[in-house]
Amino acid sequence: MLIRKLFAVAIALAVSAGVAALAASKKSSAKVEVPVVLQGQADAWNRGDLATFMTGYLKSADISYTAGGTEVRGYDALKERYEKKYGTDRESMGKLKFSDLRVSELGRDHALCVGRWHLDRAGKDALDGLFSLVLTRTSDGWKVIHDHTSLSEKPHG
Amino acid sequence: MLIRKLFAVAIALAVSAGVAALAASKKSSAKVEVPVVLQGQADAWNRGDLATFMTGYLKSADISYTAGGTEVRGYDALKERYEKKYGTDRESMGKLKFSDLRVSELGRDHALCVGRWHLDRAGKDALDGLFSLVLTRTSDGWKVIHDHTSLSEKPHG
Repeated sequence: MLIRKLFAVAIALAVSAGVAALAASKKSSAKVEVPVVLQGQADAWNRGDLATFMTGYLKSADISYTAGGTEVRGYDALKERYEKKYGTDRESMGKLKFSDLRVSELGRDHALCVGRWHLDRAGKDALDGLFSLVLTRTSDGWKVIHDHTSLSEKPHG
Repeated sequence: MLIRKLFAVAIALAVSAGVAALAASKKSSAKVEVPVVLQGQADAWNRGDLATFMTGYLKSADISYTAGGTEVRGYDALKERYEKKYGTDRESMGKLKFSDLRVSELGRDHALCVGRWHLDRAGKDALDGLFSLVLTRTSDGWKVIHDHTSLSEKPHG
């Protein structure tokens, strides 16, 4: 009986190792998927759809957004900040573009994405700068858990 | 012979699982170690020791530093930026303080650290702002692989 048990254990271990390897190989690369998430966010922004734009962030009280020396904690507070700062319609939100994306994998389930943003809004100066995003892999795709966005330095008059 | 082999395999698997668990438990938490790395950087900075300050970064051409709309790539370029911007002696480098550190583990071997920095220099306005660091675990401790540092927004005159 001991022999059968050992044999069963060895088979089970071999099978689970095989399944794990298969699952790992089936996971698409962050380098491919993260830019798609960001393009989806920009597309949503540009049709005035803040709700869909926000799906790029993890819906969690633990996420954080850093910009201009202040930090916003939590999905709800971040959504509110966007609403207050940019409104919720196409006109006020303007046209957002991401470029120069570079994704680095941080282990299997996290990624860093750095890139450049540019925002045009009617009757206002264009804004641009760089961002650093930390993302986590979820069953619903890659989600941003930390966003540090900064403005390009303007010459001071 | 098959039985002996299976038995040997089972023992080997059990032992390696035990060793892996022990190794994992021996790894100290990023939450404990990363603040120590940063305090070491601040201490080095405050005695005008840029070389030791730089040991907080991974010595790699792949690291990146983002500030004020520009990005610096690679350890050597970053060291050069610090030298040009702050000099290499105690007087010109001033007094650097990190505070409000918050460390999040990203899997076992990466971490995110957000926090606030403040720099006092003789005869110049104090600078402060927030930073987001992505770190990787190495045999030589935690090292920064990405640094996004931004200035607090000042009211424009």
